[in-house]
Amino acid sequence: MKLSEIIRHLGGELLGEDCEIVKLAPLSSAQAGEITFLANPKYRRELALSSAACVIVRADMLDEATAPGRSLIVTADPYLYFARVATLLNPVPALRPGIDARAVVDASAKVADSSEIGPLVSVGRGVVIGERCRLYPGVVLGDHVVLGDDVTLYPNVTIYHGCHIGHRVAIHSGTVIGADGFGLAWDKDHWFKIPQTGRVVIEDDVEVGANTTIDRGALSDTVIRAGAKIDNLVQIAHNCEIGEHTAIAGCTGIAGSSKIGARCTLGGAVMMVGHIEIADRTHIGGGTLVSKSIKKADNYASSYPMSTAKDWMANAVHLRHLDRLVDRVKLLEKELLQIKNKEGQAE
Amino acid sequence: MKLSEIIRHLGGELLGEDCEIVKLAPLSSAQAGEITFLANPKYRRELALSSAACVIVRADMLDEATAPGRSLIVTADPYLYFARVATLLNPVPALRPGIDARAVVDASAKVADSSEIGPLVSVGRGVVIGERCRLYPGVVLGDHVVLGDDVTLYPNVTIYHGCHIGHRVAIHSGTVIGADGFGLAWDKDHWFKIPQTGRVVIEDDVEVGANTTIDRGALSDTVIRAGAKIDNLVQIAHNCEIGEHTAIAGCTGIAGSSKIGARCTLGGAVMMVGHIEIADRTHIGGGTLVSKSIKKADNYASSYPMSTAKDWMANAVHLRHLDRLVDRVKLLEKELLQIKNKEGQAE
Amino acid sequence: MKLSEIIRHLGGELLGEDCEIVKLAPLSSAQAGEITFLANPKYRRELALSSAACVIVRADMLDEATAPGRSLIVTADPYLYFARVATLLNPVPALRPGIDARAVVDASAKVADSSEIGPLVSVGRGVVIGERCRLYPGVVLGDHVVLGDDVTLYPNVTIYHGCHIGHRVAIHSGTVIGADGFGLAWDKDHWFKIPQTGRVVIEDDVEVGANTTIDRGALSDTVIRAGAKIDNLVQIAHNCEIGEHTAIAGCTGIAGSSKIGARCTLGGAVMMVGHIEIADRTHIGGGTLVSKSIKKADNYASSYPMSTAKDWMANAVHLRHLDRLVDRVKLLEKELLQIKNKEGQAE
Repeated sequence: MKLSEIIRHLGGELLGEDCEIVKLAPLSSAQAGEITFLANPKYRRELALSSAACVIVRADMLDEATAPGRSLIVTADPYLYFARVATLLNPVPALRPGIDARAVVDASAKVADSSEIGPLVSVGRGVVIGERCRLYPGVVLGDHVVLGDDVTLYPNVTIYHGCHIGHRVAIHSGTVIGADGFGLAWDKDHWFKIPQTGRVVIEDDVEVGANTTIDRGALSDTVIRAGAKIDNLVQIAHNCEIGEHTAIAGCTGIAGSSKIGARCTLGGAVMMVGHIEIADRTHIGGGTLVSKSIKKADNYASSYPMSTAKDWMANAVHLRHLDRLVDRVKLLEKELLQIKNKEGQAE
Repeated sequence: MKLSEIIRHLGGELLGEDCEIVKLAPLSSAQAGEITFLANPKYRRELALSSAACVIVRADMLDEATAPGRSLIVTADPYLYFARVATLLNPVPALRPGIDARAVVDASAKVADSSEIGPLVSVGRGVVIGERCRLYPGVVLGDHVVLGDDVTLYPNVTIYHGCHIGHRVAIHSGTVIGADGFGLAWDKDHWFKIPQTGRVVIEDDVEVGANTTIDRGALSDTVIRAGAKIDNLVQIAHNCEIGEHTAIAGCTGIAGSSKIGARCTLGGAVMMVGHIEIADRTHIGGGTLVSKSIKKADNYASSYPMSTAKDWMANAVHLRHLDRLVDRVKLLEKELLQIKNKEGQAE
Repeated sequence: MKLSEIIRHLGGELLGEDCEIVKLAPLSSAQAGEITFLANPKYRRELALSSAACVIVRADMLDEATAPGRSLIVTADPYLYFARVATLLNPVPALRPGIDARAVVDASAKVADSSEIGPLVSVGRGVVIGERCRLYPGVVLGDHVVLGDDVTLYPNVTIYHGCHIGHRVAIHSGTVIGADGFGLAWDKDHWFKIPQTGRVVIEDDVEVGANTTIDRGALSDTVIRAGAKIDNLVQIAHNCEIGEHTAIAGCTGIAGSSKIGARCTLGGAVMMVGHIEIADRTHIGGGTLVSKSIKKADNYASSYPMSTAKDWMANAVHLRHLDRLVDRVKLLEKELLQIKNKEGQAE
């Protein structure tokens, strides 16, 4: 694709020669025929290393980015522009509509003709599958699951009975939607299982990573709002609600009945207790244990800083006795005050 | 089902009118025809919002729970009673005994006639499957696996060769039982794999969540004792033993050869080192790193408390130098003592 | 197998009678006909409990290990020797070459005749599978995946299109190789997905545990170098590079574009931020949050030490105000200095 074609599709201003682009590449390793971008000024040193045919830049980086034989595309948000170019250059493979003969589709299921149901897929009773869906091998849909249009389910995804998936949702391999929530009541000498009778409802434009688990609700539903993006190995327990356009990075766990607002970001390995609420536009750093509701949008963090094991040992021994250290400081303050008072009297 | 029928099945005392119940609902949103419960007095304010036909309550909440047109069921443990009602109102779908023609069952496997083997299930050589089991599509059983009676394996569960599963066990989708433990010996310039020749043994009445992993033992077995309950995305390494009726919440990881006692609870994201023992009835809070054996049953915790990122920055810088702070306090104490001694001498 | 045969295969010195060995067992429970080992001197007390026919020991433990009727094998590294014996006594089940009739293999795929493709396996277009591979039921290979020789893929493994797997690689059940990295650009009021166009490249002799996820690169590849060993439920994000012979324990998460050196070890539940580099031969303790690059090989740790919940409460309240405590100590030091100065003047 020529740079001029890219500009025609995506806007932006082309400086320098028009030329043919074969692929995208990272700034430092881009070669002739490749397009790259500079979004974060801290990588500007890599400009010198780059043999890219074209660099996507902000107007304020123009002087630095200019080099002989290099074209530039000027745009307000180079990272986003780059994402659009990548989308343009990597179209999704065409659907092959139809149900593979080696898929197992219950006679009562309704599958739109435009959808592709791969081999070794299992579709339960009363399932409804919308237009242009793509189900890869090994996908299992329980009874009465509903998929909207343009849903992509990668290999070995499982969706339990009754769950509801919106339009343009993508779910990656190994992810399990709608398993029973972890609901138990102690009954004298054993745990009694609480039937999990709610569903999982995933709204439009959600993407869920690989090997993630989203449990069905106990009574009401677990809900993932429109545009939310969830990474790999994330656990979302029963009755949670994840707000619109909230992004949750990998290895995060959210206990039951917690409600996360819209447009939040959760770094990796965040752990959130149950029955709390997180305000819209809250940002939580990686590894934070969120132990109570957050009412005010801000950046939050917690995590014990790394050091060498030797330093850690020297330090951690005091960590567990911080209360005693505080008492010692209090005593010192009191005694010092007495001394000062005495001195004051003496003078 | 009528309230009087529920009472007949489960006991408890009915106050107010008998009526037909269609479903269960949370306290705050329950409507006419719905039954709900009040277990935790801190949610008593929601009583006013509730249009439930019937509320399950403890005797000491009777006065607060009474309202015109609302029936009450009085019982000692409303949460457990509610769980039983839910079980009553949501019977498990009937089994469809038989082996689906699109399942792959080795000729040497013994499958009870009362069990249901779904399509796209794979059953290895010498496998034994007890009465009334239900295997959903995508389940894979390695050679010589043994399942007791009334076992439910949800879609895409994998059980490796030789593992032994007791009666009334349920395992949710994506969970892997009996993969090789992480056993390695360093051999000059590379890792040499230690064959993992033990099994996983899961006793009766265990439930395991989705995408959890329980590794086979290296020499002896990994054992999950009767009645234990394990949530999603939990890792249990080789040669661990999980005690009877112990409950383990999501995202927890337990390193090899650790032995957890009976009737313990582990909160989410607990991380436990290997080769330790945890006393019966120990309770471990979410996010705790358990670095040594626990000999005395109690509640345990560890985790750096959350704050705003700004406060965290101001604080964490000192965390790594706590040993120096302690030294400074020691020095202050010594110097203050000298001053006081001098003063004592002076007086 | 006789002890003399073991010696013939693996070297070492036999002390005592030659005899027939049926299996391996842990030191404390080994019986007649069983072989065991003593690698860590701290377990020497278990020698007395052991009825093992043979114990593998280091020369310096000879006196303690000697007992009537017990043979010994003397070797420099008993753990490694034991691993080799285990391998000798537990040969891998023979391959059954050929493609099962119930596998779904695209006509364009090239599968070596010596490989075993189990039932319910799905192999995409243009896939290449080397010699002596074993694919268990439920494995799904996307288009143009390449497998080297002697690759073992356990049930329900998914490998996305275009990924490249080296020789002698083993991947355990439920693991997902090559799902899209978590790449998003914010576009006014929603997330715009960044196409992930790189691959995952896994070099020779790598083993990957169960339910792990390794994402494909955004532009360039995610690379796992030769001999690396990765445990269960590990998340490796897009564009990471894991060095040769590095071992990563379970529940670890590594954010995007991080580069881990060779021969490192990461304990369980390590969390690593993105875009950092870790020096060769670095060892990171379990539960450590790695928040910046490590340039010097050493042992690293971080984690808040466990205590009873009561002690933790007393302590944690001060943790968040450590900066104020430091200020108080500073003030004390200043005031004490003033007092000492005054005294000095007074004397």
